[in-house]
Amino acid sequence: MFLRVDKLQIDLPTPKRQDANAAAALQELLGGKYGEMSTLGNYMFQSFNFRSKSKLRPFYSLVAAITAEELGHVELVSNGVAMLNNGPDSDADEEDGGDISEAPFEDMKDIRLAAAFLSGGGGAMPVNSNGQSWNNDFITTTGNVVLDLLHNFHLECGARLHKLRVYETLTDPTGREVCGYLLVRGSVHAHAYALALKKITGVEIEKMLPTPNIPLGNIPECQKYLDEGSHRRLYTFSPDDYKEMAGIWGNGEVALPDDPPGELTVVDGMPDGGKIQQLTGVPSAFTPDYAPEEMFEIATKLYKASR
Amino acid sequence: MFLRVDKLQIDLPTPKRQDANAAAALQELLGGKYGEMSTLGNYMFQSFNFRSKSKLRPFYSLVAAITAEELGHVELVSNGVAMLNNGPDSDADEEDGGDISEAPFEDMKDIRLAAAFLSGGGGAMPVNSNGQSWNNDFITTTGNVVLDLLHNFHLECGARLHKLRVYETLTDPTGREVCGYLLVRGSVHAHAYALALKKITGVEIEKMLPTPNIPLGNIPECQKYLDEGSHRRLYTFSPDDYKEMAGIWGNGEVALPDDPPGELTVVDGMPDGGKIQQLTGVPSAFTPDYAPEEMFEIATKLYKASR
Amino acid sequence: MFLRVDKLQIDLPTPKRQDANAAAALQELLGGKYGEMSTLGNYMFQSFNFRSKSKLRPFYSLVAAITAEELGHVELVSNGVAMLNNGPDSDADEEDGGDISEAPFEDMKDIRLAAAFLSGGGGAMPVNSNGQSWNNDFITTTGNVVLDLLHNFHLECGARLHKLRVYETLTDPTGREVCGYLLVRGSVHAHAYALALKKITGVEIEKMLPTPNIPLGNIPECQKYLDEGSHRRLYTFSPDDYKEMAGIWGNGEVALPDDPPGELTVVDGMPDGGKIQQLTGVPSAFTPDYAPEEMFEIATKLYKASR
Amino acid sequence: MFLRVDKLQIDLPTPKRQDANAAAALQELLGGKYGEMSTLGNYMFQSFNFRSKSKLRPFYSLVAAITAEELGHVELVSNGVAMLNNGPDSDADEEDGGDISEAPFEDMKDIRLAAAFLSGGGGAMPVNSNGQSWNNDFITTTGNVVLDLLHNFHLECGARLHKLRVYETLTDPTGREVCGYLLVRGSVHAHAYALALKKITGVEIEKMLPTPNIPLGNIPECQKYLDEGSHRRLYTFSPDDYKEMAGIWGNGEVALPDDPPGELTVVDGMPDGGKIQQLTGVPSAFTPDYAPEEMFEIATKLYKASR
Amino acid sequence: MFLRVDKLQIDLPTPKRQDANAAAALQELLGGKYGEMSTLGNYMFQSFNFRSKSKLRPFYSLVAAITAEELGHVELVSNGVAMLNNGPDSDADEEDGGDISEAPFEDMKDIRLAAAFLSGGGGAMPVNSNGQSWNNDFITTTGNVVLDLLHNFHLECGARLHKLRVYETLTDPTGREVCGYLLVRGSVHAHAYALALKKITGVEIEKMLPTPNIPLGNIPECQKYLDEGSHRRLYTFSPDDYKEMAGIWGNGEVALPDDPPGELTVVDGMPDGGKIQQLTGVPSAFTPDYAPEEMFEIATKLYKASR
Amino acid sequence: MFLRVDKLQIDLPTPKRQDANAAAALQELLGGKYGEMSTLGNYMFQSFNFRSKSKLRPFYSLVAAITAEELGHVELVSNGVAMLNNGPDSDADEEDGGDISEAPFEDMKDIRLAAAFLSGGGGAMPVNSNGQSWNNDFITTTGNVVLDLLHNFHLECGARLHKLRVYETLTDPTGREVCGYLLVRGSVHAHAYALALKKITGVEIEKMLPTPNIPLGNIPECQKYLDEGSHRRLYTFSPDDYKEMAGIWGNGEVALPDDPPGELTVVDGMPDGGKIQQLTGVPSAFTPDYAPEEMFEIATKLYKASR
Repeated sequence: MFLRVDKLQIDLPTPKRQDANAAAALQELLGGKYGEMSTLGNYMFQSFNFRSKSKLRPFYSLVAAITAEELGHVELVSNGVAMLNNGPDSDADEEDGGDISEAPFEDMKDIRLAAAFLSGGGGAMPVNSNGQSWNNDFITTTGNVVLDLLHNFHLECGARLHKLRVYETLTDPTGREVCGYLLVRGSVHAHAYALALKKITGVEIEKMLPTPNIPLGNIPECQKYLDEGSHRRLYTFSPDDYKEMAGIWGNGEVALPDDPPGELTVVDGMPDGGKIQQLTGVPSAFTPDYAPEEMFEIATKLYKASR
Repeated sequence: MFLRVDKLQIDLPTPKRQDANAAAALQELLGGKYGEMSTLGNYMFQSFNFRSKSKLRPFYSLVAAITAEELGHVELVSNGVAMLNNGPDSDADEEDGGDISEAPFEDMKDIRLAAAFLSGGGGAMPVNSNGQSWNNDFITTTGNVVLDLLHNFHLECGARLHKLRVYETLTDPTGREVCGYLLVRGSVHAHAYALALKKITGVEIEKMLPTPNIPLGNIPECQKYLDEGSHRRLYTFSPDDYKEMAGIWGNGEVALPDDPPGELTVVDGMPDGGKIQQLTGVPSAFTPDYAPEEMFEIATKLYKASR
Repeated sequence: MFLRVDKLQIDLPTPKRQDANAAAALQELLGGKYGEMSTLGNYMFQSFNFRSKSKLRPFYSLVAAITAEELGHVELVSNGVAMLNNGPDSDADEEDGGDISEAPFEDMKDIRLAAAFLSGGGGAMPVNSNGQSWNNDFITTTGNVVLDLLHNFHLECGARLHKLRVYETLTDPTGREVCGYLLVRGSVHAHAYALALKKITGVEIEKMLPTPNIPLGNIPECQKYLDEGSHRRLYTFSPDDYKEMAGIWGNGEVALPDDPPGELTVVDGMPDGGKIQQLTGVPSAFTPDYAPEEMFEIATKLYKASR
Repeated sequence: MFLRVDKLQIDLPTPKRQDANAAAALQELLGGKYGEMSTLGNYMFQSFNFRSKSKLRPFYSLVAAITAEELGHVELVSNGVAMLNNGPDSDADEEDGGDISEAPFEDMKDIRLAAAFLSGGGGAMPVNSNGQSWNNDFITTTGNVVLDLLHNFHLECGARLHKLRVYETLTDPTGREVCGYLLVRGSVHAHAYALALKKITGVEIEKMLPTPNIPLGNIPECQKYLDEGSHRRLYTFSPDDYKEMAGIWGNGEVALPDDPPGELTVVDGMPDGGKIQQLTGVPSAFTPDYAPEEMFEIATKLYKASR
Repeated sequence: MFLRVDKLQIDLPTPKRQDANAAAALQELLGGKYGEMSTLGNYMFQSFNFRSKSKLRPFYSLVAAITAEELGHVELVSNGVAMLNNGPDSDADEEDGGDISEAPFEDMKDIRLAAAFLSGGGGAMPVNSNGQSWNNDFITTTGNVVLDLLHNFHLECGARLHKLRVYETLTDPTGREVCGYLLVRGSVHAHAYALALKKITGVEIEKMLPTPNIPLGNIPECQKYLDEGSHRRLYTFSPDDYKEMAGIWGNGEVALPDDPPGELTVVDGMPDGGKIQQLTGVPSAFTPDYAPEEMFEIATKLYKASR
Repeated sequence: MFLRVDKLQIDLPTPKRQDANAAAALQELLGGKYGEMSTLGNYMFQSFNFRSKSKLRPFYSLVAAITAEELGHVELVSNGVAMLNNGPDSDADEEDGGDISEAPFEDMKDIRLAAAFLSGGGGAMPVNSNGQSWNNDFITTTGNVVLDLLHNFHLECGARLHKLRVYETLTDPTGREVCGYLLVRGSVHAHAYALALKKITGVEIEKMLPTPNIPLGNIPECQKYLDEGSHRRLYTFSPDDYKEMAGIWGNGEVALPDDPPGELTVVDGMPDGGKIQQLTGVPSAFTPDYAPEEMFEIATKLYKASR
């Protein structure tokens, strides 16, 4: 089972302006082969399909707990995409959509992924930066523990490369913060899968990190997360379960040489998290509707009735 | 953010025998257009993309909370698929894979979805009963609240039909229990989206339920869940959030005429849940590996180190 | 069986200029999830697969007749796409393609969907505004009458939203006229499926219209069709069949409150229709060929021989 | 525009028994690369995108008219698929679905394309015999007349091969009749495109027919259509249009050497056609619903009101 | 550039009987995510896209040369698939197809992948064992050398698992020989990519082999290839190029512990290879045609004219 | 089996500047329906699946040999794509990637196919100009010789049209040279398949060439290849095999009327070929890595060790 908490894993800065192509670039980290839907999908199905769960408890717990974190990553990138598509919050939703006959969205036919506006209304969808759908081709769940872990290690390294490149295309703080945070967390996951592989095979594969070969300290948006030690923490993302992964992450293992030093630790639960943006509606785009005032009134009454 | 709990939403009975084609049928409820990946994907992205969240809090909360429940449904069907593919748990993983040169899995080339064995090793994957991948085509997230809710209402009715038909093909208790439970919970969701639509539009669309037109009381595997009032409960699936949906579900609304009577209530948190099956490995199929003994020993040591 | 008439359902104004990205936006209404290929495909296969046709004649007739109208909608949008890709008709095809070595189509590598030129030569194809193919994922044909009708009702509401957004991106009269007309006709279909559902279930679901919540009277391109009462007419689109749908559309039912008032009526046959554009060839793009003169001469002779 | 007539192009014999795998084989002729959706899609979009329509009238008319016939072929194969999936008509829909808890459709999990039952309820869908969706990859519409005609000629030869092989797998008269009729009509189309190419290029490509190299006279189900001269007739499938194709089909051209001799002629309008089957519902499969009696009563009243 | 030699990499034994489902299982090794189309596609595009080729010559040469070997693997599996679909060679093609009206291929509608017969006529196609197409999702070509090599290492381990499982389903010697040979050659590639990674990163990742954890010596069909030292040889598969990979494979490196011992060596050119099977036609299935006799006569004359 | 030679089929001029959209246009010739992956895939699988190879030796040899040439075409277009994406070679890879925090690739989020940079790092991938993957839908391999040859003839004509249109969008010499050369070679293949069809059927289908109807002499980039007689040569692309195709290509057949006159001849082996470009890495894009210096040193040592 899964529980949900109405927060993002971090606070995202407000976008400075609407930038649909920046949102489209960020989609690569959502629905691409090396995006968050892929890390989520791989670990989720691997954890469902995990064999001999008791006998392999620390390994099962590792994959199961990271799955929960990845759900929050999908959420984080999705929020970033929607924020970049929508621009800064405003009070626009307090009016109706006005006269729509003057082609108010003419510029939307020239954005890279026009369907993101025409169909998605500026929301995130599980597609990559070229508009291709995420799908089962991106999932490896063989039931063979070494192979699945090796796949995951390669997946996190690939995800790191993709995050770096997307970061290099972005000027808006919203998208850059998404990349900076995920680079740190993805490095934790790569490290964790490396340690799991080392425990089983004896190969010190964590020495292959970082791949690509750039220290995260070079990236301003990563720095604060390194400073607070995020790179040394794995969360259980659970009220009570998955603590057994401390046999892999922890147990005397320390931070990678390029990162601020310290011991690896498992943290019960989740990080403090940050606020979810409102995503003010745009009545002229029929979000939440053309004339939302009545809907807002109804919702206010229902809200009061719920308390 | 999301948290994970190491339980299924219910206890699933052990399968009586391995039945790969039954597992393949159940895949329709996982990766088909009207399967749980679709309900999850729709509500998850709709909740990420939701506009004017504060002003529409009860509606946002409804979609957000049901998303969390759907994660558990994806997990439940996936467990059912893997259990049917694997058959009853055993001690098979305590030995190595033996002599593999005598075509030990000859019958696997004749099952309907051979890749479920050859690639997935008997695990669940996000594909439908014909092996087609789940994908973005199955997602509607327009940012228009009425349209998205109407889509969701239709989606839950469609899901009900598909669950009924899959149920009608299954004799094994594992798959039937999955269907029975999901029929009850899916009916709750259809009902909830109907009430949300009614609040906004005034149309008593819940009177269209049940669609298809069969009372769940006719289905033995649904009966116990009706008896305990599951059809009248929506869980927040959250430690503290999403209670505002009580303005929609609750607030004097009552059970549908065909179901046991009573008031609709929002329950904080989650149900008690049931045990996740071990899914004993099959070394001759290289799950968790051909010779897993050493891996088990390592895991045992790591487990001890984690405590 | 189907018959074809060499007319469009309406006259389309000539495009003012070539605009490949406008054509690409219009593709969302052709090959997108909520485009005309989807309405056509759903109703066509539902009508083929309809059970107990005699006993449910009015419902069967409704779906069967609207299928025929949708064929004309696919044709209309396709013509709009091709017209926007090609620009105004000219005499260009009376010459040969000239010197092609000076990159005469350099600007075509920067249009959003370059394959529309490189492969399609500016023609319409069953893809959406991002170039993704229409496919079976967009079809729901379950054989359950209520579910299929409910799906269709949601589909028409979704189609309305997509038409509105595409309309908001267009300045050229060709594409706007396509949207204006289809908004009116799509509203008829939404209304008709609502009435069909009401007859079976008693739920006044037509009161949910219009979704999205904007009167078509706000849209200049819709106005003339409302004035002539198009919103109150369903055509049989048949020489002799499908009149039984008058039991659903008609039978005392009236126009929706936002639209000009009056009774709903079934009209035998089809509307008068409008002229199909020539789509002058562009020999330098090898349409109809690089040096078409001889082909034109041959065609003229064959034409004479045919009379 | 298109009109619809409530008949099939021919009478189809009733299936002797339900045979889901025969229906699945027939799907190759519906949604496969060389199936009727492909012939329809190619000619339909080619006719929409046709350049210089007036100057090339006989060629345009040929493609436009055959499009209308192909709609009827899609309908014919779809009916065949649904009939084979459902078996002979009965009075089953006069009862309700009874007790569904005894796995009444257990055998449906072993049919080749289980989703045809689980999702489609036994209806036809635009997929091939392996369950893969038809899509835009199967369409060639370049705007170059010679290339498009050449593609069409190859497409009809390929379609002929596929029909022959599907025929060779079927024992039931329904599916065999579908194949027999379509073989004759497909040969007409191959011949017609060959003549069109000959008119433009001078190459006697019709001498390549038949491909594959077997006379249709060898096939009993083709014989009656050859006897009545169907192989020499092209229908305009239009009340008034498309007669100009007589410049290509007709004009002194005669039947192919392997077929009964005679002149090729264009026939105004359509063939007499045959009856569409009822497709009795199966309430236990929720078609048209679990308890359809009330729906039938409502329909009867509406039917009376429509007259 | 590439050259072709009219031999397979090994002799394949003749199949004992036609077995379409065995052929379908083997398709997983052709068009699946971990099949030979994937190894080919990854290395081919990586070699095309390789940066700084001179400066990284040994690494470039390794990827480039293995690409050529993979072409032969695609050929080998394809031959295996076609042979299993067709059964033993015969003289069947010396007659015509006879009477096809008695459903001569009735059993083909029940094979797992009916389109393999209906469309492919028993030939191999780039699809997996469930009939899903190979596609670009399976390719990783990032231009980052470490990441691409790591991906390739994981890919070869995954391919090994899939070959093992397919092997376990097969009883026919043709398919088993394909698996046995490819297991040995795939192990060479995994080993080679491991050494390349070790050279750059210092991590002894080759110690993770074999994954899955079973020595090839356990598999009779691998034994002869191990005996002749195939596991220690990399071929340049080139008349003159790619010898520089000896800096990686060779250079004192030795066989893996589980395999027969010895030094790793680069061999110029290619192995001796084996005979390609005739694949006798089946005129009743229209291969090479219904009445091939005349075609054979023509070919004989042309053959003589060519000498 | 296949061998590889470290040359392109021709020398490609260096690109004048980086042009990602030109590269994207060229992708149509790589991964589009009528691109080189399609010609390769069709002929490769047809040659694997060829029936009665000995009896039909000249035809088999033709398809088999052209397959090998197409591999080089895939390589050539891929090189062109990568060169256009990367721009002129430089010494950029001798430094590290510097400060990546200033959005060094901001312009990459606005290119048509952003994933080509974000994921592919500027390399070629098997997708079309809209980013859609090449797949099995583009392959026809029926085992029927006439049909497969007819398909191939149509495919080469279609490929010619697509090459012409891509050429018309390009100003850079790299892409134009790719088009010019492939137009000549593609014409050879169209001609060859036409002759093969003529030998079997007697139809002089080569008289349909050129399609589209423009002489290659009009295109400056084709001229030098015509001058050297490339249009009259088929290479065996083999050390010793496939000479029997001289019974089809040769044997008194001559060049097409529009081209420089002369006899058709089969040439043993391959053309002289041209140099493969270095594709200098871009460390800031992590190709071959962020700090490649050490990797270059290692490679240099390994290179020396290999000699």
